[in-house]
Amino acid sequence: MNLQLTEDGRLRHLLTLDGLPRAILTQILDTAESFMDVGEREVKKVPLLRGKSIFNLFFEPSTRTRTTFEIAAKRLSADVVNLNIATSSQTKGEAILDTVDNLAAMHADMFIVRHAQSGAAHFIARHVAPHISVVNAGDGRHAHPTQGLLDMFTIRRYKGAFHNLTVAIVGDVLHSRVARSQIHALTTLGVPEVRVIGPKTLLPTGVEQMGVKVFHDMDAGLRSCDVVIMLRLQNERMKGALLPSAQEYFKFFGLTPEKLALAKPDAIVMHPGPMNRGVEIASEVADGPQSVILPQVTYGIAVRMAVMALLAGTANT
Amino acid sequence: MNLQLTEDGRLRHLLTLDGLPRAILTQILDTAESFMDVGEREVKKVPLLRGKSIFNLFFEPSTRTRTTFEIAAKRLSADVVNLNIATSSQTKGEAILDTVDNLAAMHADMFIVRHAQSGAAHFIARHVAPHISVVNAGDGRHAHPTQGLLDMFTIRRYKGAFHNLTVAIVGDVLHSRVARSQIHALTTLGVPEVRVIGPKTLLPTGVEQMGVKVFHDMDAGLRSCDVVIMLRLQNERMKGALLPSAQEYFKFFGLTPEKLALAKPDAIVMHPGPMNRGVEIASEVADGPQSVILPQVTYGIAVRMAVMALLAGTANT
Amino acid sequence: MNLQLTEDGRLRHLLTLDGLPRAILTQILDTAESFMDVGEREVKKVPLLRGKSIFNLFFEPSTRTRTTFEIAAKRLSADVVNLNIATSSQTKGEAILDTVDNLAAMHADMFIVRHAQSGAAHFIARHVAPHISVVNAGDGRHAHPTQGLLDMFTIRRYKGAFHNLTVAIVGDVLHSRVARSQIHALTTLGVPEVRVIGPKTLLPTGVEQMGVKVFHDMDAGLRSCDVVIMLRLQNERMKGALLPSAQEYFKFFGLTPEKLALAKPDAIVMHPGPMNRGVEIASEVADGPQSVILPQVTYGIAVRMAVMALLAGTANT
Repeated sequence: MNLQLTEDGRLRHLLTLDGLPRAILTQILDTAESFMDVGEREVKKVPLLRGKSIFNLFFEPSTRTRTTFEIAAKRLSADVVNLNIATSSQTKGEAILDTVDNLAAMHADMFIVRHAQSGAAHFIARHVAPHISVVNAGDGRHAHPTQGLLDMFTIRRYKGAFHNLTVAIVGDVLHSRVARSQIHALTTLGVPEVRVIGPKTLLPTGVEQMGVKVFHDMDAGLRSCDVVIMLRLQNERMKGALLPSAQEYFKFFGLTPEKLALAKPDAIVMHPGPMNRGVEIASEVADGPQSVILPQVTYGIAVRMAVMALLAGTANT
Repeated sequence: MNLQLTEDGRLRHLLTLDGLPRAILTQILDTAESFMDVGEREVKKVPLLRGKSIFNLFFEPSTRTRTTFEIAAKRLSADVVNLNIATSSQTKGEAILDTVDNLAAMHADMFIVRHAQSGAAHFIARHVAPHISVVNAGDGRHAHPTQGLLDMFTIRRYKGAFHNLTVAIVGDVLHSRVARSQIHALTTLGVPEVRVIGPKTLLPTGVEQMGVKVFHDMDAGLRSCDVVIMLRLQNERMKGALLPSAQEYFKFFGLTPEKLALAKPDAIVMHPGPMNRGVEIASEVADGPQSVILPQVTYGIAVRMAVMALLAGTANT
Repeated sequence: MNLQLTEDGRLRHLLTLDGLPRAILTQILDTAESFMDVGEREVKKVPLLRGKSIFNLFFEPSTRTRTTFEIAAKRLSADVVNLNIATSSQTKGEAILDTVDNLAAMHADMFIVRHAQSGAAHFIARHVAPHISVVNAGDGRHAHPTQGLLDMFTIRRYKGAFHNLTVAIVGDVLHSRVARSQIHALTTLGVPEVRVIGPKTLLPTGVEQMGVKVFHDMDAGLRSCDVVIMLRLQNERMKGALLPSAQEYFKFFGLTPEKLALAKPDAIVMHPGPMNRGVEIASEVADGPQSVILPQVTYGIAVRMAVMALLAGTANT
C-alpha cells in the first residue's frame, strides 16, 4: 500500500520519510556512504546513470536545491534537463499531469519535483508509469525527504548511532517541511528523545502526537542535547501577527554561544540553509567549531546520488 | 534555389516542409524509424553528434519545445547550450545576425531557432556559413516543420501509407504554423484528401489553394476520416471578435466521442499539444483508445534526432 | 602577496590583468594557441577537465559571456552548472560567501564569477579553499581579464609581436572594465605606445598614470596606429549629461572608413561586442576587411579553455 515501495520492498519513489521503513532509511545512508569518495576524486564521475534522462521539474523556483540535484545527477553521468514551470493558483492538476505525461513519453526515467503545494509529488507519483521514479524535492509545508536524509547521514557520521541521542529542532516547525521530514526519520531510526523548541505561534497544534517533546523555553529545551537543528525563519513570518520582530525572535530563540553551552559539550549544530545570521543563529555559532552546516551540504550530494542510484536500480548495495 | 537542400540534393537546413521533396520527407521518416529503439535502451545515447555544439536559440520562450530538442541532442551526445534571447519589436535584424555571427565564430554546428516572427529561421539560414545548419523550431504563423514531420511519422506508423487516406485538420488554421506544415507534408506525401474544418474567422482566405477541402460544419468534415488532427486554440483568440466563448467553440468544433463516431471506426486522433481540454477536445477523446497524442511526443524525439543527424551528415541512411 | 599566483608562481585565480607577470600572460596565450585546433575538429572535445565541476556564478545576467565560458568548459569535458543569482543592493557580502561556501561544499572546482560590483571576484577568491579557482568574468567597472587576454591573443595572431606597436583604445574608457584590462596587458606585454581616445567626460581623470597617451581628437589619436580597439558605448550614457546624442557621438568618435584611413594601411579593428552599429562603429568598418571582430570571438573560446586548463593544472604547457 506504500506508494514509495515496490511489492518486494525496494524503493520506488522518494516522497516522504513518513512511513519509510528503517531498513530503507539505513540502506540509503549506507549507499550514500559508498558515494562519499566520488566527490574527492580527480574525476568526480561514475557511470551508474549513463544514458538516463532526469528532469528537474521545478514548479517553484529554487536555484539552490536544483543545483544539488543537478550536480548529483551529473556525477552519476545522467542527462539532466531543467524545467522551470510557472504555475498559477488556477493551474489545474490536469495540466500538470499533461506535462508529466509528455515528458514520460520522451522516455523520462526520473522526475525531481518541487512544488509550492503539499502533495504535488505524491500526485505525480500516483500517475506515472511503473518504470518512472519521482523524488520529492520539497512540496509546500509537507516534506523534503532528501534534506531529512542528509540530516540523518550527518548525525550518524558525527554521533555514530541514533539509539542514545537527544535531538532538538528549534524554530518555525509550523511552516517547515524540513522539520516534518526530520521528525519522521529520527523517530524511525530510534532516537529516544526528539524535542521541538519554539514559540507557540510557530509550533503545530498537536505536534506531541508525532512523538516529540515540546519546549517553549529554549534554555530548558537545549539542556543536555547531542544535536541541535536550527530551522530557517522565513522573513515573511515577521510581517504578520506571528512574530514581533527579528531582534525579539533572536533574543528568545536565536542560537548563541551562551545558549549552545547548555547542550552537551560535544553537541553538533545543524541548519538546512540558507541561514539568516542574526535571526535564528549567531554567526559565532554558524561558523564555530560545533557547526556541521557545511558538511551537511557535502553529504547532501552523496545522499542524492544514493537516492537516484537506488531508484534507478543501479546502486551496488 | 532551395535554401534547404545542398546542390546534390541533401538536407542542409530544415526551415519549412513547403517545397521539400517527397524523397527527403521519406528519408527523414526512415531515419527516425532507425532511432526509435534508442529511447527504449538502458543507455539512451548514441555517439553520432559527439563533440558537436548545438545552440537552442529561442527568441520566443518555449520550455516544451526547447526540451524536446535538448533531449534529442543529448541522446545524440551533442553539447547543447540554451539561449533565451529577449527581443523587442524594435530589435533590428542586424542585432540578430550579430548574435548568430558570434555563436558561429564559437564554432557552432547547428542552430535550433524559435522566433515570434515568420521568416526568422530563413533569415538566419540565408546568412550562416556553409557548415552550419538551421532548424526552424517555430516561426510566427509560418512553419513548425519538426512538428509536421512527427505528425507524418505518426500517421505512417498507424496507417502504414498515405495514398489512401482522408485527413481532417480541425480548428484555428488561420493562426497555426503547425497546420501549414501539416498541409504541405500531407500533400507532398500523396494524401488524396486533406480537409480543414473550422469557423470562417479561423480559416485563412484562399486556403483551398493549398489543395485542401474546406468545411465549416464539423459533422460533415469528419465523416469517413482516417485521421483527425485537432489544433490548439490560443486563449487570446477568445478576447477579440473572432470567437464568442470557449463553451460555444467547444459546442461546434470541440472533438467529442459523438463527433469522433462520424469518422472511420479506426480513425486516430492527434493533437500537437498542449491541449485545452474542454475547449478543442473532450478529455474522453484525448485519453481515449483512438488518441495517439502521447505516441506523437515519443516519435517527436526520434524525428528530431533524425533531422539533426541528417543535417550533421552522420545518419546511417 | 599576489592573490592570483601560487607560492611557486603558477596561476591560481584569474581576477585581473593588473600585476600579472608577462611570463604568465605569455603562458596563457601559448596555451590558447595549443587549443586553437580543438574548435576545428570533427569532435570538438578534449578530456582535460572531465569530472570537474564548474559553476557559472552570475550575479549579473549575461547570456553572451555565460555562453562563452559554458562552451569552453564543455569542450574541456567539464560538468557545468549555471546559476543566475539575483542580488539586491541590500544583499550582504556574507550572503554571497554563504552561497560560495555551499557550492564549495559540493566539491566545486572552479567559479566563473560575474558581478555588477567591482571587487566581487577578489572578495570570493580571498575566501575560497586552496583547491578552488576563481575566474573573474567581469566585475563592475574594474576588470574583465579573459576579454583582455583574448584581445592580446588577437593582436599577437595578426601582428606577430607587441614591441613595435601603436595601439589605440577609443570611446568610453571611464565605464569600461574591458579597457582597464587591455591597458594593463598591453603595457605588460611591452607595447611602446598605448593611446586612449575619447571625450573628456568618458576618460577617467589621471588615466595618463596608467602609462597611456590621451587624445580628445580622434583623427590625431588614430594616426599611424597598428591596432584600433573600439569600446561599446552603453546606451544609458546618452541619458545623462555625459553625452549629447548618439549621432553627435558617432560624428566625433565613431569609427568610419575615412577615420580608419588615418591609421596604418594594415591596421586591424577590434571590438569586444556587442556592437552598437552607427554609434561607435560604422557597419562598413565592422564588416570590412580590416575588422577582426569575429576572430576575436573564436579566439575567446581558446583563451577561456587555456585559462581553465591552467587553473585546473591539466594544461600541457
